[in-house]
Amino acid sequence: MRNRYFSSDPAQNSAAVALYDSVANLPLICPHGHVDPRMFADPEYSFGSPVDLLIIPDHYIFRMLYSQGIALDELGIPPLSAAAALRDHREIWRTVCANWHLFRATPTGIWLRDELADVFGIQLKLNSRNADAIYDAIEDRLSHAEFRPRALFERFNIEALATTDAATDALEHHQAIRDSGWGGRVIPTFRPDAVVNIDSAGWRANIDLLAGIAGVDVHNYAAYIRALEERRAFFKSMGATATDHAALTAYTESLTAADAGAIFGRALKGEATAKDAARFRGHMLIEMARMSSEDGLVMQMHVGSWRNHNPQVFARYGPDMGADIPIRSEFTKNLKGLLDRFGNQPDLTLVLFNLDETTYSRELAPLAGHYPILRLGPPWWFFDSWLGMTRFLDDVVETAGIYNLAGFNDDTRAYPSIPTRHDVWRRVCADWLAGQLLREFIDEEDAFEMMRALAYDLAKQTYRLDD
Amino acid sequence: MRNRYFSSDPAQNSAAVALYDSVANLPLICPHGHVDPRMFADPEYSFGSPVDLLIIPDHYIFRMLYSQGIALDELGIPPLSAAAALRDHREIWRTVCANWHLFRATPTGIWLRDELADVFGIQLKLNSRNADAIYDAIEDRLSHAEFRPRALFERFNIEALATTDAATDALEHHQAIRDSGWGGRVIPTFRPDAVVNIDSAGWRANIDLLAGIAGVDVHNYAAYIRALEERRAFFKSMGATATDHAALTAYTESLTAADAGAIFGRALKGEATAKDAARFRGHMLIEMARMSSEDGLVMQMHVGSWRNHNPQVFARYGPDMGADIPIRSEFTKNLKGLLDRFGNQPDLTLVLFNLDETTYSRELAPLAGHYPILRLGPPWWFFDSWLGMTRFLDDVVETAGIYNLAGFNDDTRAYPSIPTRHDVWRRVCADWLAGQLLREFIDEEDAFEMMRALAYDLAKQTYRLDD
Amino acid sequence: MRNRYFSSDPAQNSAAVALYDSVANLPLICPHGHVDPRMFADPEYSFGSPVDLLIIPDHYIFRMLYSQGIALDELGIPPLSAAAALRDHREIWRTVCANWHLFRATPTGIWLRDELADVFGIQLKLNSRNADAIYDAIEDRLSHAEFRPRALFERFNIEALATTDAATDALEHHQAIRDSGWGGRVIPTFRPDAVVNIDSAGWRANIDLLAGIAGVDVHNYAAYIRALEERRAFFKSMGATATDHAALTAYTESLTAADAGAIFGRALKGEATAKDAARFRGHMLIEMARMSSEDGLVMQMHVGSWRNHNPQVFARYGPDMGADIPIRSEFTKNLKGLLDRFGNQPDLTLVLFNLDETTYSRELAPLAGHYPILRLGPPWWFFDSWLGMTRFLDDVVETAGIYNLAGFNDDTRAYPSIPTRHDVWRRVCADWLAGQLLREFIDEEDAFEMMRALAYDLAKQTYRLDD
Repeated sequence: MRNRYFSSDPAQNSAAVALYDSVANLPLICPHGHVDPRMFADPEYSFGSPVDLLIIPDHYIFRMLYSQGIALDELGIPPLSAAAALRDHREIWRTVCANWHLFRATPTGIWLRDELADVFGIQLKLNSRNADAIYDAIEDRLSHAEFRPRALFERFNIEALATTDAATDALEHHQAIRDSGWGGRVIPTFRPDAVVNIDSAGWRANIDLLAGIAGVDVHNYAAYIRALEERRAFFKSMGATATDHAALTAYTESLTAADAGAIFGRALKGEATAKDAARFRGHMLIEMARMSSEDGLVMQMHVGSWRNHNPQVFARYGPDMGADIPIRSEFTKNLKGLLDRFGNQPDLTLVLFNLDETTYSRELAPLAGHYPILRLGPPWWFFDSWLGMTRFLDDVVETAGIYNLAGFNDDTRAYPSIPTRHDVWRRVCADWLAGQLLREFIDEEDAFEMMRALAYDLAKQTYRLDD
Repeated sequence: MRNRYFSSDPAQNSAAVALYDSVANLPLICPHGHVDPRMFADPEYSFGSPVDLLIIPDHYIFRMLYSQGIALDELGIPPLSAAAALRDHREIWRTVCANWHLFRATPTGIWLRDELADVFGIQLKLNSRNADAIYDAIEDRLSHAEFRPRALFERFNIEALATTDAATDALEHHQAIRDSGWGGRVIPTFRPDAVVNIDSAGWRANIDLLAGIAGVDVHNYAAYIRALEERRAFFKSMGATATDHAALTAYTESLTAADAGAIFGRALKGEATAKDAARFRGHMLIEMARMSSEDGLVMQMHVGSWRNHNPQVFARYGPDMGADIPIRSEFTKNLKGLLDRFGNQPDLTLVLFNLDETTYSRELAPLAGHYPILRLGPPWWFFDSWLGMTRFLDDVVETAGIYNLAGFNDDTRAYPSIPTRHDVWRRVCADWLAGQLLREFIDEEDAFEMMRALAYDLAKQTYRLDD
Repeated sequence: MRNRYFSSDPAQNSAAVALYDSVANLPLICPHGHVDPRMFADPEYSFGSPVDLLIIPDHYIFRMLYSQGIALDELGIPPLSAAAALRDHREIWRTVCANWHLFRATPTGIWLRDELADVFGIQLKLNSRNADAIYDAIEDRLSHAEFRPRALFERFNIEALATTDAATDALEHHQAIRDSGWGGRVIPTFRPDAVVNIDSAGWRANIDLLAGIAGVDVHNYAAYIRALEERRAFFKSMGATATDHAALTAYTESLTAADAGAIFGRALKGEATAKDAARFRGHMLIEMARMSSEDGLVMQMHVGSWRNHNPQVFARYGPDMGADIPIRSEFTKNLKGLLDRFGNQPDLTLVLFNLDETTYSRELAPLAGHYPILRLGPPWWFFDSWLGMTRFLDDVVETAGIYNLAGFNDDTRAYPSIPTRHDVWRRVCADWLAGQLLREFIDEEDAFEMMRALAYDLAKQTYRLDD
């Protein structure tokens, strides 16, 4: 299916095929995602059942089933209070297959179909009739050595894969990977949200963890900054090239050391207000930019997700249950605090992601088309889809060009879906460039160079993976 | 014109024709609209002149003429103060035809053209040259029995048609329809805005009407709730399956009974503030969800229209004069009050409509793709158009799928335009699905099942019209 | 390249060619832009070097190079503090050409390519290899008399060109043009921002300039209004048909004369607050509408640009350095003050521009489709692009039709790019109308009349250039 997903216009279709073919064998650069490093630490790591692999960890899938009235318990999601979740995985799989029509025309539907075909060699359509046969086939494949994570890493032609790790993580799995002598490049990413968001549950306990692992007595703001710098240095020594920061808004503000210290002091005593938390987070984003300007770690911001929007689901199952809902975002005003201080530094890179497509053409492209530090991340989450990516290219390229983009990242914990996700991105780009080429906005030389940049070079360069 | 409006790409065009043909004979489900039930109560009901039928009640038409400097008086719109409006309907029709170029490439232009052709059998283009001939032809048709509302109902193949009725409406026309023994299914919809919006003109008088018709002395909040429940039960007994709620914003908030009672008391005394009104409306939306969870009526919310934006037009002609202008909408925060209480109930249905397309992909699709109670209504008002519908499908389906949609409703008071409006929706869906099919996102089985769902099943199921 | 940029669908392509050809020889109407009138005052005016002509004045170009880490100094932009900027223009040109890939798929890239081909007769692709040859060729062309501004004006077939001029401008270049007997219609536009924005740097000094040039002692608000009326009359006597107003938001509010006078008094004493400034600006927009309703000047508003967002660039180079970033806009509420007073006057015209595409379908089209005074300006700035214009037509025409649009204006200071910019607009319209025609939304008569309106008539009529 070389021309899968391409325009039905014959000229555009064949131009897209040529562009796609030119990058089809390039390795995958995976600079941001949530794959569990443990997979690679243990050479004999097993994925478990088909449901363990494909359903239980994938909130894209079970949120949609839930929206149609299927209880999460029936899908094997373990309630926090329960000793164990539903264990009849074949029955869960049948429920999923019986409702697979819900995923028609969704990226989730396309990914799983392509993943089954391309990774598992299973061409059957997901439905009640085929449920058992598909289950058996996946189970069979998973029992073979070529379906171990490391084997797939090589088969997937992954050049580098970054995980996302708490600032307090000891990175023992990353250490184990290094120690094992295996050649795959799996690197950590420094994500300090849990020690930065002073209003998050467990912040105080995380500060203690931070103190312990950094070997710094975090009794005040200066010590806190030292501890964070310490951890960044450790992550960098373990191969990290980037940090990641999640925030409800992009608000940034430079506090004086005295103000930052006072807020931090209140937080230690459990007396910080909501406003303190917002200002401190905004201040710490600038502090992280300052540290990045010193240690060279690429900075990422993921903005605009209202986490755990459904209190009943959160109470029963915990976080990351498909109930994170986007809110409107704003960058022109909110990011000014950070840009005023670091926006003009060409040696610093800040990659922006968000879930409000209205910002693409109005704010993000004009900002990235001016400020040297900015790059735009690919469409995130709900927008990691054919039409979402197409809208992104339509909305940003005319103003920012493609060289202010960060290429693609799959941002997934669903490891075997990685090749499919990159494939969709590459196909979107090929289709889009073919349209540009046929309308003569660009010529062939442009198109092929842009294709390669979007498929490979931009991600590698942006995340400094080219050393 | 089997392939009217479809893509000029030959492959997509013929796929769209096949999909369209597969639903062309399915009945029309009209679960939300503003047709006057009086039309069906009187078997001899006459539409009046072509201008009475097509121009005077249609603010889509006269707002556009007004925008180009044509006074509403010249179009037969009666000023509130005037004994009578302009009565030379042929002259009005000539004015409309002479300016019909204003409607080029608009849905209004397309609807009227198709309606004249498909319902009235008139193929002439609307312009000054043809004005009189078209007027004569419409007048002639309207004089025949097959152009009475009931005859058209059958010709249009309408399976069910819901009107929209005030909570205080006695539903005497609906009663007359039932009593007449005519078989057409015309049902009411419970719309309590005029007794819920304590800041609206006439609220106090409407409460008296409510008390009278419900037979409840509405002297306090508890009695008010009882009266509303009483009315809902009556509407349900008359065939209603749904309620409808218009609101400037989607704000919802659960008040304590004490707070709700205090605000209601202030409102009775004419002492409620603007903030009281906003909070009370937000609270009553949740109360209506509570009642729906008990009586099973499907709940609809139409959000984001600034009504009567033009004070001069409002003063001279009253409401609904084409001067309602959309404002920005927000659901993630605003709807949380209601969702926190009722979002997880699969037996409850809330259909959302709004006029801010930015919410489609950012808020509505993610919400509908998670919460069991939510369904997305079709594009409303200005967006009930070829491109508006296409953008809607583009923006929501990848995240919410199609099974979290409510299918189509025509939302019109222009009765003879109903088949045309459904036809445009079905054609948009056929064209869109054909595109998905040719790009191999879906296969033929998917496409035909989705086509039927979008054209018929989803509306019927969502509005519980399948008993 | 008659079919440049058109759809690759053969039927749509040839329909677009026919539509385009029908307007290809119509003159250019340029009712809003920033060309320097001095160019036409001096028959021997020279553009300087290729870099003086094409790079240094064009913030679209150097902002993109800057975003990729190229210092503005290296591009010949003079720092405020420097005696002189980098003068080796050939070296600057080489830098630009070496980085021209950054402009792939951007309107800037397309404009310069087309301008070189169509105006300068240079077909070479911009890159390092061709840099010197292109530089030499441009330099050669500029040395010939047919590349003087007046000669190009005739070759470009410009029927009228409006400049944008401060309220305090003596218009001596416009006077010189008139005195010279040259037949080109170059007219001023009245832009009073610098004397209206009481919080802008230099406002007080500008009031003195205003007083001096108007011959009115501007000691209070009444005198200020008189001085502005005086200046408007002068601009009108010099051929102006329009005014222009830039504002961060569209906020309008009618102040009492007493309140306006009090704020003006505080401003004169340097004591006005930020809130005073916002209210005064909102009030003055209504005052300007009042004056327009008397003198017939068409009013333009450009809303939503955060000027000089980058303080470091502003401090070093001053304003207009490619660091203006859009913000979210709102019209339904903000414009109500003005519309309440003047919205229904068909003899008054207000043309709206902004940089937030979400307002197109949600607010601007519904407003323009109702209020007689409103017209929608073409996509502005970042959205003056193929996809930006296409989205604009997609988003507004279904609701507002095309007869509530203001046609096209190039809004450029890059004089030799004018034909190219109009050409892109005409091609977008031809392509878009061809799509509408093939889908049978419109017929051939409609399509050709709409084509002419969009290419020529609407701009001429809206800006009252038809006398």
